[in-house]
Amino acid sequence: MKKDSVLVKFGNKVRQLRNEKGWSQEELSFKSGFHRTYIGMVERAERNISLKNIERIAKTFNIEIQDLFTNKN
Amino acid sequence: MKKDSVLVKFGNKVRQLRNEKGWSQEELSFKSGFHRTYIGMVERAERNISLKNIERIAKTFNIEIQDLFTNKN
Repeated sequence: MKKDSVLVKFGNKVRQLRNEKGWSQEELSFKSGFHRTYIGMVERAERNISLKNIERIAKTFNIEIQDLFTNKN
Repeated sequence: MKKDSVLVKFGNKVRQLRNEKGWSQEELSFKSGFHRTYIGMVERAERNISLKNIERIAKTFNIEIQDLFTNKN
């Protein structure tokens, strides 16, 4: 099944931000309150994440939602 | 039930962009392929919209996803 590119891009961005922070998936799940498997699935583009969860991830990284969709940081 | 502010902000942004185009909810639903009631619910923050649907709305307005979360246009 071809993964949806918007989900792939989002998952890659979450992984990039997580790595920049030096966090494991476990640490990101602890800080965000999401289960570790959910984080893994989002990063692998296996979850069509909702807006409220997108906001929670942005808040966990202390960035704005739009920053999750830009290539600048 | 207090509506979630991220959903309220998103709904208001969709309504603002739709009005700027001079489209009715019906026209936006026709152009996006969403049912008109879904458009209404998103605008009233009654739907925790998914990323794939967010992308579809951005494409319908011919803007980038991040533009749905900024106040510039």
